Amino acid sequence: MKRATAQSMRNAFGAECAAHMRYLLFSDQAAFENFPNIARLFRALAFSEKVHASSHYRQTKELLGEYCVNFSAPFILNRTVDNLTKAFESEKEESEEYYQPLAAGARSQGEMHAAQSFEWLAQVEKAHSDMVRRALDALEHAAEDPEIGELYVCDICGLVMEEKPPENCPVCRAKQFRFRLIE
Amino acid sequence: MKRATAQSMRNAFGAECAAHMRYLLFSDQAAFENFPNIARLFRALAFSEKVHASSHYRQTKELLGEYCVNFSAPFILNRTVDNLTKAFESEKEESEEYYQPLAAGARSQGEMHAAQSFEWLAQVEKAHSDMVRRALDALEHAAEDPEIGELYVCDICGLVMEEKPPENCPVCRAKQFRFRLIE
Repeated sequence: MKRATAQSMRNAFGAECAAHMRYLLFSDQAAFENFPNIARLFRALAFSEKVHASSHYRQTKELLGEYCVNFSAPFILNRTVDNLTKAFESEKEESEEYYQPLAAGARSQGEMHAAQSFEWLAQVEKAHSDMVRRALDALEHAAEDPEIGELYVCDICGLVMEEKPPENCPVCRAKQFRFRLIE
Repeated sequence: MKRATAQSMRNAFGAECAAHMRYLLFSDQAAFENFPNIARLFRALAFSEKVHASSHYRQTKELLGEYCVNFSAPFILNRTVDNLTKAFESEKEESEEYYQPLAAGARSQGEMHAAQSFEWLAQVEKAHSDMVRRALDALEHAAEDPEIGELYVCDICGLVMEEKPPENCPVCRAKQFRFRLIE
């Protein structure tokens, strides 16, 4: 893998590791506020970010070594309504202002596998932001834990779906059995 | 919290999030090679790094915002014997070349709570490196999964103990009930 693309991958690994941890903390906070469905939504997002981090890590494995990792991340741990707002903003930003340009950069280097991976993630993070937006609207409207159906996460691209997954993942075409139900 | 100490805390948060994820991947690899005890040791280390990341995140919460995170990390995913070797080296390095100077820096700014937290972590990462060294020696000697007793992790400072924990954590003095048994 070309050096610039590999470094993008490592930075994205760092960002995804941090997002994974942030969503675990947001989930604990939601459980504390007695919002079990939102806590479950954050667990689904945390698992999705773990899938992304793991994928990024494995893709750079040909260039073993010690590397610097740089990324920007929100530091917030507040009431659940604020955490959801920040999650919505950062998922949207990750799609438009992070993975889309990373995909273009990887494509310009001829790194088509990395480019496709970044493109999938741009789609996945966009889907997440829509899902978080719906949960946020519901919470703001009713001021109680919103109804959220069963959540499934694709363990190839990390897509979270609030319905029984179809035969193939709509983003990465992985088979249905790759989806994991989040408890 | 003073700005330099807060930035150290955020960088350490990033490093711990990445270490958490790396140990989860190492654990999967150890399980794949049929080393269930080493897989469990890596799960204990992953949980410990999660305790650290969570603690760092919570300590910076008065300075909410979007911040850059910078750290250096090993990128390796190999045979378990290599992963253990890298884990030994990086735990030792984290103690001596990371948390000890961070603690001195925080102390110089009068940030005594942060300094104590960094000092605890220097001790904890040192204890981890010794534990990983023993597992590595046993694996290299017998070429089979080494015997490892029950593993308990303090959920305040992240100390991993291979024995029933005493009344108080030897590092942070937390009560015995704070230790979690790793399955």
